[in-house]
Amino acid sequence: MAKKNSSETEDRKDDHIRIIQEKDVETSGTGFEDVRLVHEALPEFHHDDIDLSVDFLGDELAAPIVIESMTGGHPNTTKLNRALAAAAEETGIAMGVGSQRAGLELDDEDLLESYTVVRDAAPNAYIYGNIGAAQLREYDLGTVEQAVEMIDADALAVHLNFLQEAVQPEGDVNADGCLAAIEQVSSALSVPVIAKETGNGIAQDTAKSLTEAGVDAIDVAGKGGTTWSGIEAYRAAAVNASRQERVGTLFRSWGVPTAASTIECVREHDCVIASGGVRTGLDIAKAIALGARAGGLAKPFLKPATRGSDAVVERIEDLVAELQTAMFVTGSQDVAALQNAEYALLGDTREYVAQRCD
Amino acid sequence: MAKKNSSETEDRKDDHIRIIQEKDVETSGTGFEDVRLVHEALPEFHHDDIDLSVDFLGDELAAPIVIESMTGGHPNTTKLNRALAAAAEETGIAMGVGSQRAGLELDDEDLLESYTVVRDAAPNAYIYGNIGAAQLREYDLGTVEQAVEMIDADALAVHLNFLQEAVQPEGDVNADGCLAAIEQVSSALSVPVIAKETGNGIAQDTAKSLTEAGVDAIDVAGKGGTTWSGIEAYRAAAVNASRQERVGTLFRSWGVPTAASTIECVREHDCVIASGGVRTGLDIAKAIALGARAGGLAKPFLKPATRGSDAVVERIEDLVAELQTAMFVTGSQDVAALQNAEYALLGDTREYVAQRCD
Amino acid sequence: MAKKNSSETEDRKDDHIRIIQEKDVETSGTGFEDVRLVHEALPEFHHDDIDLSVDFLGDELAAPIVIESMTGGHPNTTKLNRALAAAAEETGIAMGVGSQRAGLELDDEDLLESYTVVRDAAPNAYIYGNIGAAQLREYDLGTVEQAVEMIDADALAVHLNFLQEAVQPEGDVNADGCLAAIEQVSSALSVPVIAKETGNGIAQDTAKSLTEAGVDAIDVAGKGGTTWSGIEAYRAAAVNASRQERVGTLFRSWGVPTAASTIECVREHDCVIASGGVRTGLDIAKAIALGARAGGLAKPFLKPATRGSDAVVERIEDLVAELQTAMFVTGSQDVAALQNAEYALLGDTREYVAQRCD
Amino acid sequence: MAKKNSSETEDRKDDHIRIIQEKDVETSGTGFEDVRLVHEALPEFHHDDIDLSVDFLGDELAAPIVIESMTGGHPNTTKLNRALAAAAEETGIAMGVGSQRAGLELDDEDLLESYTVVRDAAPNAYIYGNIGAAQLREYDLGTVEQAVEMIDADALAVHLNFLQEAVQPEGDVNADGCLAAIEQVSSALSVPVIAKETGNGIAQDTAKSLTEAGVDAIDVAGKGGTTWSGIEAYRAAAVNASRQERVGTLFRSWGVPTAASTIECVREHDCVIASGGVRTGLDIAKAIALGARAGGLAKPFLKPATRGSDAVVERIEDLVAELQTAMFVTGSQDVAALQNAEYALLGDTREYVAQRCD
Ligand SMILES: Cc1cc2nc3c(=O)[nH]c(=O)nc-3n(C[C@H](O)[C@H](O)[C@H](O)COP(=O)(O)O)c2cc1C
Ligand SMILES: Cc1cc2nc3c(=O)[nH]c(=O)nc-3n(C[C@H](O)[C@H](O)[C@H](O)COP(=O)(O)O)c2cc1C
Ligand SMILES: Cc1cc2nc3c(=O)[nH]c(=O)nc-3n(C[C@H](O)[C@H](O)[C@H](O)COP(=O)(O)O)c2cc1C
Ligand SMILES: Cc1cc2nc3c(=O)[nH]c(=O)nc-3n(C[C@H](O)[C@H](O)[C@H](O)COP(=O)(O)O)c2cc1C
Repeated sequence: MAKKNSSETEDRKDDHIRIIQEKDVETSGTGFEDVRLVHEALPEFHHDDIDLSVDFLGDELAAPIVIESMTGGHPNTTKLNRALAAAAEETGIAMGVGSQRAGLELDDEDLLESYTVVRDAAPNAYIYGNIGAAQLREYDLGTVEQAVEMIDADALAVHLNFLQEAVQPEGDVNADGCLAAIEQVSSALSVPVIAKETGNGIAQDTAKSLTEAGVDAIDVAGKGGTTWSGIEAYRAAAVNASRQERVGTLFRSWGVPTAASTIECVREHDCVIASGGVRTGLDIAKAIALGARAGGLAKPFLKPATRGSDAVVERIEDLVAELQTAMFVTGSQDVAALQNAEYALLGDTREYVAQRCD
Repeated sequence: MAKKNSSETEDRKDDHIRIIQEKDVETSGTGFEDVRLVHEALPEFHHDDIDLSVDFLGDELAAPIVIESMTGGHPNTTKLNRALAAAAEETGIAMGVGSQRAGLELDDEDLLESYTVVRDAAPNAYIYGNIGAAQLREYDLGTVEQAVEMIDADALAVHLNFLQEAVQPEGDVNADGCLAAIEQVSSALSVPVIAKETGNGIAQDTAKSLTEAGVDAIDVAGKGGTTWSGIEAYRAAAVNASRQERVGTLFRSWGVPTAASTIECVREHDCVIASGGVRTGLDIAKAIALGARAGGLAKPFLKPATRGSDAVVERIEDLVAELQTAMFVTGSQDVAALQNAEYALLGDTREYVAQRCD
Repeated sequence: MAKKNSSETEDRKDDHIRIIQEKDVETSGTGFEDVRLVHEALPEFHHDDIDLSVDFLGDELAAPIVIESMTGGHPNTTKLNRALAAAAEETGIAMGVGSQRAGLELDDEDLLESYTVVRDAAPNAYIYGNIGAAQLREYDLGTVEQAVEMIDADALAVHLNFLQEAVQPEGDVNADGCLAAIEQVSSALSVPVIAKETGNGIAQDTAKSLTEAGVDAIDVAGKGGTTWSGIEAYRAAAVNASRQERVGTLFRSWGVPTAASTIECVREHDCVIASGGVRTGLDIAKAIALGARAGGLAKPFLKPATRGSDAVVERIEDLVAELQTAMFVTGSQDVAALQNAEYALLGDTREYVAQRCD
Repeated sequence: MAKKNSSETEDRKDDHIRIIQEKDVETSGTGFEDVRLVHEALPEFHHDDIDLSVDFLGDELAAPIVIESMTGGHPNTTKLNRALAAAAEETGIAMGVGSQRAGLELDDEDLLESYTVVRDAAPNAYIYGNIGAAQLREYDLGTVEQAVEMIDADALAVHLNFLQEAVQPEGDVNADGCLAAIEQVSSALSVPVIAKETGNGIAQDTAKSLTEAGVDAIDVAGKGGTTWSGIEAYRAAAVNASRQERVGTLFRSWGVPTAASTIECVREHDCVIASGGVRTGLDIAKAIALGARAGGLAKPFLKPATRGSDAVVERIEDLVAELQTAMFVTGSQDVAALQNAEYALLGDTREYVAQRCD
């Protein structure tokens, strides 16, 4: 594949990160507020004996936490990725890089470093690559393997972000053939494939298609956290693209709420990452009780990453402490027990799930 | 039928339009807020290949959107109707004119032009006439055909607005024999007949009666948008008719919410227009997922119409873009697919529908 | 029965009326807000042909509206009762007088006139007397007949107000034997007996007991309107009776909401008056759709009564206009049809009724 | 057991009481707001004949009210415990002392008096001791009997407070073997054993384990009142322990709401005390209608206790008056009748219970 010098992809990444830091780009309504884990007054084990480790695509994570795909693709992001990766290394959790499109399509050493820094800073951590489904349709297997090699990835995430593409003036809105492309790469790639949304969730039927296509994990990235439709609305506003702004705003809160999406996906796949508005270790615990393997967070790591690796580690350890507490008071000594923890579903999520999953 | 010179009907039209532009005449609670379309992360088609066209009473519309019956009947409205009609022509959607009573009963060339301008400006668009059910009882078939001829109508809407009539001091509150009149005109008229409410919705039993009476389409015009009871309350207040004002205000939010009414009507008729508080292409998408053939809007087109045809076209294209996005992210390549799109019903609408339709 | 000169009962009446006029003595939550009558777009009759008349304990009312038991027992209230009675006479609706205890127990001509004025002002209206259940236990049949004779009553209401009695420092809290007393008077009295609450509603079991005891009608007087517990809390506060104030305040919103109570009572008795927070003709329509025979209002008539009979008539005509409109748009030409009108129950009332009546 | 001089436990008690008096340490959401007792308009007994007495672990209480375990363990608390005990003695209700750990482990006469004062002030009242489950694991039976003897206790409460321990920097988070320890002490101790939470409630499975372990009563101490997680968050904030503060705050409202916990526990045990956010006699009545034997309050007695025994008696008499009123208007002449009183469950509690208890 011939490398280009164009920097549209690069600049977009920069725009995005700036908007995410400056504007209100979070929705609410993950549905976790409707999940009530049941208190266990008698945990019957020592808090220090809680085991957070979890099998993840053949490997083991020290805790069921994922730093979701975010950055890379602009020299400015090298620092961020270094901090995130070093923290993943130190704490033993997984980390995804942002879309590698820029790295694959542009010929720029500095830009490439924004990806490669990750493996340098995290020689042992579980690191996975990232390619958009729309791009996947156009790449041959060799190009996809380049993405893996670029960061010596343990897995590759293929992101589904068609709402965002539809709101972008320059968006790639050809979704035709994506599933076939995912099926092909799932069977041929040297590493496991994770299918992921980016904030609108994955419904049960889609999870079924993805499972049949052979993906190794599904990351729900549901409604309730970072809203890409909202982010693109801000970008559109900045360039007076009022129709895009209007559409982006209208669909700001579109999608399957993360809790509901988790419930839908675990009916089809046994390795589900719950993300989209996950903000605490208690959210992670709820997601796991709903059947997820791990919880993922993107935006909450962004600000710590600008401050460096220690700040990211701090944030991860907060999550770990919160998750441990949740495990303690639900009487769940390990993640498998937490997956069987009792809960009640209330409100909209109960109504939604009752209609979707009966 | 002998033409009169009286201008009571004419002035009322003028009053109405002024009040609608100046006062709060919208209610909330269409029920669309309770309809959650399910996100499709993998649409599997190209956004540009979305087909919005829809069969409509033998014809085809470029998009499932209707400019609801509004104006005509006063020379002031000629400009508005010209703008609306030209936009319908340009975009290929349907348009209704306002009540033709004034046109049929009064002898005034300028006034008549407020209707005829529509066909002049829209030689090819789907245009339909409008007569009140209370008037229909009194007209012979020849008079009704005059309404059709007046604008070379493709269909005729018969409006049911008895709450409004009951609130008007001068209202025509004789509803006796309306159904028979509708049945007669449905079987004898040269064009299809659409039965429509004007903001209070149509329940399943009424839809059944109308279907059995042979109407070709039902426009629900449900609760949640423009409130005629509210409008008449303002008119009553202006003339110190305090009892009418009181009643009008009390019934401001009366009726079957548009989403519920759509669900009720599609059980009885296969050509249902959802209107009443439809404000975005996403509302139209929801209505279609509930089984409607098309979505209709009245008030949202009023202000653009005062600015001219281009502004109306802009508004229609906004709706189209919103609807296309909804179709894309529900994986619905055409309107038929959208009618089969999955959704969940929450809140009051779920409770209401459960009790009404089981 | 020997007449006393003590005026404690008399002063209490005066206190009450003053507090009701000056303080916030209304609760919310009648449940009518959860009752959604179904719109009928095609009423198929002339609005002027609506028949509001209703059979009521052998007689006929011009409209299904009752002026609930309120005043009498203090010379100050003569004027109020005259206005109310004259309005009942003019409009053909029913009216109850306030508790006749003072009239029976005290020897005071002026005071007596506060009751007798009612029949003077309303020679033909349906007028009913009022005695507390706690008093009934102590009176012999002759005394009860005196109450009937005092106003030439068409019926006698026996009120159940034990929450109020419990909050009053001087309250009569002996409820033992009330049912037997009601049974006795129901079988022996010369006129029909109405059992009524005063703001806390009547549940199905109680309605069953009352029906078996032979009462001719039940007036639910449910939660959601005037709160006697709240009124007594104000009286207690005025005399620094802080425990009573506390209890009165705690039970301010106690009771079966009027809509729910109506549903419960009509399962046991076919002549049910719905009262307690009924404020509009639409509330009356809802109550009747739930199965009531008529709707009753107390507090809303108090202020008009201070202004005279015309003001009360105005208020009644407002209610009539509102009720007629509700009947028109539910397609109910008479009260019997309205009793069969369709509705949906939402929210708390749906949940409550589902648990109480299945 | 060797007595220590360390005063960490002592100081903690002091911290707690100060924070409880100064900060917002109450959550909401006991679920009592969702419990609607059904009004009985015809109680059919004399209010003065209401019998509040209840069997309680072999003894009889004058009213089904418990002063929950609070203080002792610091000389400052002697005054408080004296006031509480004297009031329990005067009113014939039960009272628990706070954790006796300090009394068992430290060698300090003044401190010891803070416990022993209770029996001195209340020679006849039902008084029970208190030991943490985490401590119980480490004590031999002799030590536990010392706790009983210390106050000549009628029963011993074993508290389960692992969420609090998990939030405390110095917390004892070894829950391993607690159930066995409870089982042992339940079978061997000279007095009945009460298992109690401290604000997060007890779920049905835990209640089952405790019942099988032989405890004589369960005190639910559910979510909705004093929040120990919140209290520890304040303590953590004061010493800049930000992670603990964060976790404490996150779990501020954790647990099974008191009403739901009561419903869950009475399915397993027939002697259940409902506590946690019980604030009025109406709450107590609701708890009893849900199946509880008695209601318990802690925090509401704290401020009166600082003012002396009379103030506590006043507060108890308020509760009694409120409870009597509730019994009167539900037609419950004694506590057994109240346990059979009818109610409806609404809202979240209904949803929660439906999923937990079907
Ligand atoms: C700054 C930022 C950049 C992102 N970039 C990518 C990306 O390049 N590829 C991708 O698959 N998802 C990307 N995401 C989406 C996240 O991976 C994730 O699915 C979602 O944001 C999780 O929600 P949260 O931010 O609410 O925790 C990005 C998110 C953020 C906040
Ligand atoms: C200005 C205005 C005039 C209207 N005039 C008529 C009319 O003459 N005949 C009729 O059937 N409906 C009339 N309607 C009602 C609409 O056709 C329609 O049923 C309803 O208003 C749709 O709701 P929306 O305004 O909330 O979109 C009018 C509505 C408006 C806003
Ligand atoms: C001023 C006033 C006085 C009342 N006096 C009596 C009374 O003497 N006897 C009685 O049975 N009910 C009495 N009631 C209660 C009403 O009859 C009725 O049951 C209840 O208040 C109806 O509710 P509403 O006031 O919300 O319409 C009185 C109510 C009011 C407002
Ligand atoms: C000041 C205070 C001290 C407490 N100390 C103890 C204690 O030592 N042991 C115990 O089992 N519970 C203790 N508790 C918890 C109560 O016994 C009880 O379970 C809970 O607080 C009841 O909730 P309420 O305060 O919302 O009424 C204490 C509560 C308070 C308010």
